[in-house]
Amino acid sequence: MAVYTEVSDDDLQRFVAEYDIGQVTSCKGIAEGVENSNYLLHTGRGAFILTLYEKRVKAEDLPFFLGFMEHLARGGFACPTPLRARDGQALRQLCGRPAAIVTFLEGMWPRQIQPFHCRQLGEQMARMHLIGADFAIRRANALGPQGWRPLVEACAPRAHEVRADLAALIEDELAFLEARWPQGLPAGVIHADLFPDNVFFLGERCSGFIDFYFACNDLFAYDLAICLNAWCFERQSEFNATKARLMLQAYRAVRPVGRAEIEALPILARGSALRFLLTRLYDWINHPAGAFVKPKDPLEYAAKLRFHQAVTGPGAYGID
Amino acid sequence: MAVYTEVSDDDLQRFVAEYDIGQVTSCKGIAEGVENSNYLLHTGRGAFILTLYEKRVKAEDLPFFLGFMEHLARGGFACPTPLRARDGQALRQLCGRPAAIVTFLEGMWPRQIQPFHCRQLGEQMARMHLIGADFAIRRANALGPQGWRPLVEACAPRAHEVRADLAALIEDELAFLEARWPQGLPAGVIHADLFPDNVFFLGERCSGFIDFYFACNDLFAYDLAICLNAWCFERQSEFNATKARLMLQAYRAVRPVGRAEIEALPILARGSALRFLLTRLYDWINHPAGAFVKPKDPLEYAAKLRFHQAVTGPGAYGID
Repeated sequence: MAVYTEVSDDDLQRFVAEYDIGQVTSCKGIAEGVENSNYLLHTGRGAFILTLYEKRVKAEDLPFFLGFMEHLARGGFACPTPLRARDGQALRQLCGRPAAIVTFLEGMWPRQIQPFHCRQLGEQMARMHLIGADFAIRRANALGPQGWRPLVEACAPRAHEVRADLAALIEDELAFLEARWPQGLPAGVIHADLFPDNVFFLGERCSGFIDFYFACNDLFAYDLAICLNAWCFERQSEFNATKARLMLQAYRAVRPVGRAEIEALPILARGSALRFLLTRLYDWINHPAGAFVKPKDPLEYAAKLRFHQAVTGPGAYGID
Repeated sequence: MAVYTEVSDDDLQRFVAEYDIGQVTSCKGIAEGVENSNYLLHTGRGAFILTLYEKRVKAEDLPFFLGFMEHLARGGFACPTPLRARDGQALRQLCGRPAAIVTFLEGMWPRQIQPFHCRQLGEQMARMHLIGADFAIRRANALGPQGWRPLVEACAPRAHEVRADLAALIEDELAFLEARWPQGLPAGVIHADLFPDNVFFLGERCSGFIDFYFACNDLFAYDLAICLNAWCFERQSEFNATKARLMLQAYRAVRPVGRAEIEALPILARGSALRFLLTRLYDWINHPAGAFVKPKDPLEYAAKLRFHQAVTGPGAYGID
């Protein structure tokens, strides 16, 4: 939740006048996304989201993110679609920050995950992977395996403050994953942050994905592994294999998944669990005392990592 | 900015199903109001605001606030209008809190006050006073003169931390106002918090008022005095008599203002300045260290109070 930049009336009117969306009739800061300032605009032409990109998003990555959303939308995938201003540009400047207007995606993210959510998620993730496959710009995954060692080094000295065994857990796991991380699996653009709050539903239908600001080129199966962690554990960290099977089956019905990808799921799930454990641990250690935004619990991901460490094959995820 | 209560999908759907507004297609927490949780809903029938009342609003006052908004709307005044559910009630319960859905008011509040804003404000405030005059429920002004002494007593011991002379300023001013506060002037329901962020505009037209959660029975001219402070000072606390004149003239063109009310404006403006000085000082002294919401500067209102202390008559406000 965050609105960091206050936009004046005049600045807003001038900015919106460069688009073909009519006059602004309402502009509300919305409590969505912790990285950027987001406003819900109503205009004569409907609803839109105005985003001002704050410092945590690198400006040089924005053409990739916005280009990918536009590419997906052109391919028929439901997601916020960047509008181009009269100058042909989707990425512009407002209040000294990079800024863009995207279409408003109706739908709500599921607070309580049901099996049908996982089935829809798998189907739409596979569609996104297929449609994104011919997107021309590339972006490396800054939070892939090459990005983990610096995070481990930044966190390890204070990890014991969170739990006594945490430093050893992450250092051992990193060594394990670095030695065994899979190579040569099918790859393309992945979302890389497909948590429930980024997947919208209208009733039992997925209405689209949002928040592509971690999207990058990486293994398709790594997106699946992220979702095994983000969607298939219950609140007490029990793994729900039914949800996992539904997600994976629905995915495979759209994009065939090879044997090597299936076999790699346990290690990819370990890697994904470590990635979110590390970023949450980093935020936990470094958040300002008394900050309004409570950091997410890193230990949730330590528990998930422990689950995957005990997995002996993809059968644990309900598939074979 | 605040969304304190997270509403689950099921709770939301069940709650909204009791109204005749169709299915919810979107629900965004919005950064508006520091007292309550506000969500912007899109449904098949348009846009609405869902408010969950958090502890700072007294539950027993809600029938007054919601009833007043409904009364104004029926009288043709533009403001969020509470919807009644199928049981006939506008005030209901959601997630264990009092909750209501109101119509969405298009418009934006002015970040930079122009003279035309003040003219529109005066005209619409007078309309609101006239339409509200026959509203049946009553609510005393908890932050009127009787409410100031407890605030002074709570703040005085630490006021010197903000500025050395502040305790003396507020104690002297309170004694002055208690001895001279006007009696018997025309009264009715006033908004009592008509700051620019509660007055919406579409272009140069006021599109309505929001946030009636300080509304109460008090002197009509006290609403004018609050607005002299909230709308007619420039950023360095210079008083802009042109804006004041425009507001007061536009108001008087709709509701005739008697001589006694005009003569009382300087003291009412002092009272209004003291009221906001005290509540800001209280929040300043009592806000948790490191809290996300930065309290507003009490000294802005000390400067405004000093201005009104030097005023010798209503001519200072551009009228006679």
